[in-house]
Amino acid sequence: MVTDRGYVEELADVEDDFDRWYVEVVRKAEMADDSPVRGTRIIRPYGFALWENIQRQLDDRIKATGVENAYFPLFIPKSMLEREADHVEGFAPEVAWVTHGGNKKLEEPWAVRPTSEAIICPIYARWVQSYRDLPILINQWSNVVRWEERPRAFLRTVEFLWQEGHTAHASLEEAEERTLQMLDVYRDLCETELAIPVIPGLKSDSEKFAGALRTYTIEAMMGGKHWALQSGTSHNLGDHFGRVFEIEFLDAQGERHFAFNTSWGLSTRIVGAVIMVHGDERGLKMPPRVAPTQAVIVPIWRKAKEREDVEAAVQRVRDSLGSDIRVKVDLRDDKTPGWKFNEWELKGVPVRIELGPRDIQSEQVMVVRRDTGEKQPVPMAELPEMLPALLEEIQANMYEGARRMLEEKSERVTEYERLRERAAGNAGFTYAYWCGNAECEDKIKAETHATIRCIPFTQPELPGSCIVCGAETDTEVIFARAY
Amino acid sequence: MVTDRGYVEELADVEDDFDRWYVEVVRKAEMADDSPVRGTRIIRPYGFALWENIQRQLDDRIKATGVENAYFPLFIPKSMLEREADHVEGFAPEVAWVTHGGNKKLEEPWAVRPTSEAIICPIYARWVQSYRDLPILINQWSNVVRWEERPRAFLRTVEFLWQEGHTAHASLEEAEERTLQMLDVYRDLCETELAIPVIPGLKSDSEKFAGALRTYTIEAMMGGKHWALQSGTSHNLGDHFGRVFEIEFLDAQGERHFAFNTSWGLSTRIVGAVIMVHGDERGLKMPPRVAPTQAVIVPIWRKAKEREDVEAAVQRVRDSLGSDIRVKVDLRDDKTPGWKFNEWELKGVPVRIELGPRDIQSEQVMVVRRDTGEKQPVPMAELPEMLPALLEEIQANMYEGARRMLEEKSERVTEYERLRERAAGNAGFTYAYWCGNAECEDKIKAETHATIRCIPFTQPELPGSCIVCGAETDTEVIFARAY
Repeated sequence: MVTDRGYVEELADVEDDFDRWYVEVVRKAEMADDSPVRGTRIIRPYGFALWENIQRQLDDRIKATGVENAYFPLFIPKSMLEREADHVEGFAPEVAWVTHGGNKKLEEPWAVRPTSEAIICPIYARWVQSYRDLPILINQWSNVVRWEERPRAFLRTVEFLWQEGHTAHASLEEAEERTLQMLDVYRDLCETELAIPVIPGLKSDSEKFAGALRTYTIEAMMGGKHWALQSGTSHNLGDHFGRVFEIEFLDAQGERHFAFNTSWGLSTRIVGAVIMVHGDERGLKMPPRVAPTQAVIVPIWRKAKEREDVEAAVQRVRDSLGSDIRVKVDLRDDKTPGWKFNEWELKGVPVRIELGPRDIQSEQVMVVRRDTGEKQPVPMAELPEMLPALLEEIQANMYEGARRMLEEKSERVTEYERLRERAAGNAGFTYAYWCGNAECEDKIKAETHATIRCIPFTQPELPGSCIVCGAETDTEVIFARAY
Repeated sequence: MVTDRGYVEELADVEDDFDRWYVEVVRKAEMADDSPVRGTRIIRPYGFALWENIQRQLDDRIKATGVENAYFPLFIPKSMLEREADHVEGFAPEVAWVTHGGNKKLEEPWAVRPTSEAIICPIYARWVQSYRDLPILINQWSNVVRWEERPRAFLRTVEFLWQEGHTAHASLEEAEERTLQMLDVYRDLCETELAIPVIPGLKSDSEKFAGALRTYTIEAMMGGKHWALQSGTSHNLGDHFGRVFEIEFLDAQGERHFAFNTSWGLSTRIVGAVIMVHGDERGLKMPPRVAPTQAVIVPIWRKAKEREDVEAAVQRVRDSLGSDIRVKVDLRDDKTPGWKFNEWELKGVPVRIELGPRDIQSEQVMVVRRDTGEKQPVPMAELPEMLPALLEEIQANMYEGARRMLEEKSERVTEYERLRERAAGNAGFTYAYWCGNAECEDKIKAETHATIRCIPFTQPELPGSCIVCGAETDTEVIFARAY
């Protein structure tokens, strides 16, 4: 028999060795596993169930803005990928190339899509003749491949899953509006469903998407080392792709224009964010709204003759909860209750319900919160009403915890030395003025490994001095180490 | 202004030129489009919405059997694909190979998965030690690539979307049970949701999956030429993959065994089946349960002053239908009602609701069925109750129509000449006795292009003579041309 604390004893310390903690929690909670294919990972059912719940929430939100799903090819012929110069420069080093198919060498290599602008835009060019054909509002759920030398489950893998939205518009203003609208969809998803507060803002030119006019991002603060994770991006592509792929339309006056495009994506990376924002020394903490299992019922019995009664009561309790809550009943007979408690805590199930022989007498169950560890007896009859409210309370409490971390680990600085200190000490997000010059940005990156995560939408009212060169500027940015 | 019958005049005749009809209806109904990547197609939003509805139905059914979703890599290293000899022999000619990644030549080429047994089985080998680790019940929604020289939207494309289930079991009996269970899930999906009757049965050895012990199939009869479409397959892989990939486990007595596997898949091909089974001279006919749009409301007005009242009434009717029915309101002002009628008929929307100025007076709408063309006035107040019932009636009627076609175009024959005649004349499914010998099977294929679609589960009570060699046999099979 495994010891009761088998799981937790083995987990690396979340404060001292966050990177190892991450690798271990991903493996032990059965979120992902190693793969025999270099740079890739297996997403196991428990990790995939979280992704599916996130997908469902995001898909509904995307559709509510009038976007429809479609599917475009996995492959992009080389000549097509190369048409937008900045785009190919940015992505070519990361591309996997198909050179042979059906026992023959291809006439030109095909890229396995690293992103789909270069295959979707030429198709939009065929679909668009008149302003009446615009806007085109399409999203795709797909796999993409980007060569990656230092893979890490969910955060950086050679293949990953995402949605990529691609729209075409008659004006730059409309494209900008759509870009910001989708960024806000991502913000809302993270804050409402994942209990992750994010800072929306603009990327600096050096950090923007290859080929974009402007890239917007939501940045979240992870636990442990308090690094940033870029959690979703939305690009206003201007008419860069419209021009090279000739997406041309006649306006109401019969004049020709190039269309303006946007693209926006959110990937399985976000699963890494859920793990890193909420996890603690006991393992994962799943936000109730997207948790694969929201509550687990563990029967407690010692003698075989208790078993039947307890399991029958467990089944009654389970049935009383209906189908709106995702409940699991853990009837395994080769694990002790203590072992199960640890496993479900490791897996981050928000609520544990314990039920033993004495609980049957008193018609109650013991309810244990994963976020606070609090235990309280609850009459069985009240559980169906109490549980949904408790799940919402846990969701709110987890958001508040993440928000407090973000607040406490953020500091506004004016001295370069302080910025350097904070970056070296994994102190979190550092707000500072920046002149907008790439040289100052590069200096900080070279000396501190911190990068400009974004230019937040919320800016200070007064101007200040660039943290590097001292030049006066209106712009405040966030510097942080990032995954 | 486009003429009222613009769409329909252009559609090829469904009886005389079914192949051209298919290509045109796919394009005009905006189900799919050509792609700049050889052999691939774009699935447009209307086609993808149908696929999403089918996915949702199938995913629910798969999960209800205890299977969970996960995700495995797109790439399979060459040496891994080659481990199961029959498997690689079957798939190697169709594989696309990645040879370069991240600006470097790979040490060994990677196959873009044509199916995932060869990447999933080595991973299962790691997960399985004891009989307690079995069964493993996993499904994956993914894209796969098989080189294809004669592409056809949905039916045969270099890349297609599907689900592939992969299970591992402690006994051959349990694997067989799962294989048949999943085939029945496919049968139920087709019959209940898609209104497509299918014939479940066993594939002959020459038609089975490369590497399988046994392949089961559901075969459907298409309209037009009455060819067969293999609409879903389920494979009992025996321990073929368990042995070569060393999925070994200790049973309760501590003895080592190899695990038994199954795999089963249903793809975007099924969208082609929906088109071909139900379509007619006016275009698509969507089965109501999976139709992207179940009812379309078309306002009818001539004078601008009527427009406001009609559109307000349309909105009231739409609101009265709630959110359980997928309703579209067609307010476009650059198309005539007649043009819209044709377009929605082409797109196969099951019910059209017309509403004009006189209907407001009489508080009724005109309801038109796509399946029969019948029109009937319905009081607005009754529509919310009447419409769901009508949709179910249409669903049942479409199933009955397809069932009747299958019955009428099937014949039991005993003369070889009659089989040849039927194959040449696109007469449908031909039932005949077969001795089980591959030579007889090959002769028929060579001479008539008809293949054995399956050995149906329902077999005649008496033995008969093989249609080719005359040998006595218990086995009756279905011969047909197939897509």
